[in-house]
Amino acid sequence: MITSLNNLFVRTLREDPADAFFPSHRWLVRAGYIRAVAPGIYSWMPLGLRVLRKIEAIVREEFDNMGAQEVRFPGLLPREPYEATGRWSEYGDNLFRLRDRKQADMLLGPTHEEMFTLMAKDVVQSYKDLPLTLYQIQTKYRDEARPRAGLLRGREFVMKDSYSFDIDDAGLRAAYLAHRARYIRIFDRLGFDYRIVKADAGAMGGSASEEFLALSPNGEDTFAYSPGGYAANIEAVTIPAPEPLPYDNAPDAHVERTPDVPTIETLVAFSNERYPRADRPWSGADMLKNVVLKVREPDGTIYPLVIGLPGDREVDEKRLETALAPAEFEPFTAEDFTAYPELVRGYIGPMRGVEQVLGLNGSAGVKYLTDPRVVSGTRWITGANEVDYHVYDLVAGRDFISDGVIDVAEVRSGDPAPDGSGELKLARGIEIGHIFQLGRKYAQALGLQVLDQNGKLVTVTMGSYGLGVSRAVAAIAEGTADDKGLAWPRQVAPYDVLLLATGKDQAVFDAAHAVATELDAAGVAVLLDDRKASPGVKFTDSELLGIPTIVVIGRALATGSVEIRDRVSGASREVPVAEAGREVLAEIRG
Amino acid sequence: MITSLNNLFVRTLREDPADAFFPSHRWLVRAGYIRAVAPGIYSWMPLGLRVLRKIEAIVREEFDNMGAQEVRFPGLLPREPYEATGRWSEYGDNLFRLRDRKQADMLLGPTHEEMFTLMAKDVVQSYKDLPLTLYQIQTKYRDEARPRAGLLRGREFVMKDSYSFDIDDAGLRAAYLAHRARYIRIFDRLGFDYRIVKADAGAMGGSASEEFLALSPNGEDTFAYSPGGYAANIEAVTIPAPEPLPYDNAPDAHVERTPDVPTIETLVAFSNERYPRADRPWSGADMLKNVVLKVREPDGTIYPLVIGLPGDREVDEKRLETALAPAEFEPFTAEDFTAYPELVRGYIGPMRGVEQVLGLNGSAGVKYLTDPRVVSGTRWITGANEVDYHVYDLVAGRDFISDGVIDVAEVRSGDPAPDGSGELKLARGIEIGHIFQLGRKYAQALGLQVLDQNGKLVTVTMGSYGLGVSRAVAAIAEGTADDKGLAWPRQVAPYDVLLLATGKDQAVFDAAHAVATELDAAGVAVLLDDRKASPGVKFTDSELLGIPTIVVIGRALATGSVEIRDRVSGASREVPVAEAGREVLAEIRG
Repeated sequence: MITSLNNLFVRTLREDPADAFFPSHRWLVRAGYIRAVAPGIYSWMPLGLRVLRKIEAIVREEFDNMGAQEVRFPGLLPREPYEATGRWSEYGDNLFRLRDRKQADMLLGPTHEEMFTLMAKDVVQSYKDLPLTLYQIQTKYRDEARPRAGLLRGREFVMKDSYSFDIDDAGLRAAYLAHRARYIRIFDRLGFDYRIVKADAGAMGGSASEEFLALSPNGEDTFAYSPGGYAANIEAVTIPAPEPLPYDNAPDAHVERTPDVPTIETLVAFSNERYPRADRPWSGADMLKNVVLKVREPDGTIYPLVIGLPGDREVDEKRLETALAPAEFEPFTAEDFTAYPELVRGYIGPMRGVEQVLGLNGSAGVKYLTDPRVVSGTRWITGANEVDYHVYDLVAGRDFISDGVIDVAEVRSGDPAPDGSGELKLARGIEIGHIFQLGRKYAQALGLQVLDQNGKLVTVTMGSYGLGVSRAVAAIAEGTADDKGLAWPRQVAPYDVLLLATGKDQAVFDAAHAVATELDAAGVAVLLDDRKASPGVKFTDSELLGIPTIVVIGRALATGSVEIRDRVSGASREVPVAEAGREVLAEIRG
Repeated sequence: MITSLNNLFVRTLREDPADAFFPSHRWLVRAGYIRAVAPGIYSWMPLGLRVLRKIEAIVREEFDNMGAQEVRFPGLLPREPYEATGRWSEYGDNLFRLRDRKQADMLLGPTHEEMFTLMAKDVVQSYKDLPLTLYQIQTKYRDEARPRAGLLRGREFVMKDSYSFDIDDAGLRAAYLAHRARYIRIFDRLGFDYRIVKADAGAMGGSASEEFLALSPNGEDTFAYSPGGYAANIEAVTIPAPEPLPYDNAPDAHVERTPDVPTIETLVAFSNERYPRADRPWSGADMLKNVVLKVREPDGTIYPLVIGLPGDREVDEKRLETALAPAEFEPFTAEDFTAYPELVRGYIGPMRGVEQVLGLNGSAGVKYLTDPRVVSGTRWITGANEVDYHVYDLVAGRDFISDGVIDVAEVRSGDPAPDGSGELKLARGIEIGHIFQLGRKYAQALGLQVLDQNGKLVTVTMGSYGLGVSRAVAAIAEGTADDKGLAWPRQVAPYDVLLLATGKDQAVFDAAHAVATELDAAGVAVLLDDRKASPGVKFTDSELLGIPTIVVIGRALATGSVEIRDRVSGASREVPVAEAGREVLAEIRG
């Protein structure tokens, strides 16, 4: 197929779109692959759609080859199945909800666990019908609070979601591993540089889950990894609790006036000067920082949550989001402080006065959770619930207890890996796949049971596996674009080769058409730039469009030569025009 | 590819689903091709999806070959463009509307004229960028009042919609004809028996429009055709107004008491007895029947509409719907009659008393429209707006006028074709395609202009072309299923051949696998029924599933033979097992 840029429905832009902060977003819009229709909602123009469909084809081929069976669910779904599993409300504002003309509640499917479970229930009856893997490549909807980054976080997007159905845990484990291996094949084929990391199962429920993250400094996900092989999304890092310490010899708690210490650093300095520790100086890690926020449960309940953590660490918002989900959090406002006079801004601590020791839970509806490091016997400087006063030597387990543990402190490069495999490093990535061992949550909620070998009804166990197909378009662009534009890997490029005819000489256009025809006959998808435009415009567009092989037919034709450029490496060489077709074919197929 | 029925995700049903009134719906569900998720919303199971994708592939191939460029728009769209063209409100309850988390109004796209217009506006700048044809194969949403008939009238469905952009009317006409020819190719390839009929453009706007109707006694559309080549959807039939008649010699109108004439027939009989006409007897066609209903405009305005038409004809609801759109109508209730005492139930007529002649428009907000046959000089018997009284010799144009013409009377077999091409006959069909010459409505509303050859800005003219892809699955099934199940034409069948291994003899299964392997190697899509089920179950399923060629490997194998059956014709023949593969191949490729 030869497509002429004279006819191709595309318009390249010389300026960045105002809202594009990510290279993939910038270049996909500028090169005329996609256009925004609303925040997080995009149209696919011909070039973009070709990339999308190539990725779809690779995913479909791999899933067909693993024996998965393709189905397709609607995007518009009834409320009831999602009500049965609780997700109708748990999804919160992320779910697009609507009513039809008969006032029936409906939703736009954010993911289809419920529907697949019901379809399996309709068809499978006995253990002989298992194992079973179903998949679809379909449009999904999530009303993201901050749609941004172009296709990387859309509100309407294309996903491959698949589901495994097994009679027992060993079956689920095998299905999970088969999917994991298939994802590796797919992401390798797509040319991603990616890591598989432990993930939090989140609203999906279930036990084991892993994410495939394409490495990218712009990735929304941060993960931690160690030289010994530990790798986890920051949301899924669990800090092991240290052993409790004896506190028999710990000094008694004492409240002290601590004026003019607005920060942890000034409090540490003040404390080392006025109330030095015998064994070593106080550090930020000895301060018990208490952060207060408001939690909103899906049922609408709102209450203050105080999180106690070492003073040298901040609360990581993403870890907090994950830990609280499906509840959400909001800042604690000046008004809230007025409503809760027990909570003295800047001086919150887990005691109410010198004599009165209690968890904040004792105070009107305030929940108090502490970092895993706050184990029994640890000794802290913390707020005394009075302006300008802190309490010293407040010992966990002796002087206060919390309502539980919350593991939401920031994870830092250099922290020990939770599994003892060395020091953690941090990196960022784009989630391109997520695989879950769901277990029986959905099967139970929706009654998916089969007869086992003994004729007994047992609940099926499921896996759920997502792969972002439209997101992959952007993730590949993000990883391959350079400062001149897109630079597609060959397997997903919209065209194999871009032929540039530059100059005004008819011989140039004739030669370009001849090479195009030769390549087309060999089954190559050719994009031919035979526009009446300046060489400068054509070169700029050729870099912007990102077709992997560029053939320039121009001035050198006078001496019988054409130039073959590699878009990615920038390497270029001259070949005789008569050999251009063969040389390009060798490059494409090599 | 060999698929074993042991593994295929399918369950056939022995009973009809309760809500299935159409053969296609019944069989597609019973054969395990689709499942309902909500009224008018279906999931595709593997067999159904294979048929859908085969149709998609044929449509895509034909559109690519005509030089149309594929794009893809979102299903979830912002309100603004649809507001600009008026369709946000005109679509009424048929539009799925929703709000996102920021309370922005959004909709689920029922069709994408606005979006295509805006995308073209983004890209095309001059006449040199035209003509242009864009298309998508995409999921659409309409909140049908009466979703029924399975995929024939769904609320979520897959459509190919394409749009042509031209600089002038001649270009539009050429694009329209190219589409028309391409539709003919596609529907021929899909094996439809169809007619192309004149259509009403409806809410779409624009001028010329034609529908492709697949002939079917169950079709929702009725069309009229004549021996001379006239063919129009019943909604698009226009009755030409007869020439006005002179009324100089017509008798004066006179009101008469007409007790006990509850029907047109009894009024005719009464009139012929008591007030006979000199020239010929009165007939139903001389009665001016006045039907009253309530009209609701998209802006919410409601008013009574009285339609005057010959007494021997009923109002055709579909023609009325079309004539009033985007307004809708409702019955005129007893309460409404109380609110409008001028309208005397059963005795409505276009005069208010013997002396007072006026259009009903003179009466409080009541609109009066008449059938095209009610031309000046026609002489009627009609209600006198008083119980038990009619007026005789009421002459149109002399004694009353109406507010306009409304062409909504039923069209009957035997009526003359509007173009004089003979007597009309009626038939029913399923709308599988609809092509429109939109003109400049959308381009004007959304500012799609380009520079013409003289450097002047001109508004682009557009065509819009729809083809129901998911509906085609059902329409083909509707036309091909018999009393045993589905019977697919080869080009859309989910598999090429169904191999039945019947009996318990291992040799049978071995032979079936051998034939399957041979066919698979030749590129044939083989479905193999090697289940441990009775021959009866297998035969029943083989008829239900509708695969065009069935090979039975069973008892006859003892004498070296297998049976090849044709699902559609029912023809069957025995061939030596060694030749089975070759014979099947010949049949498939024949």
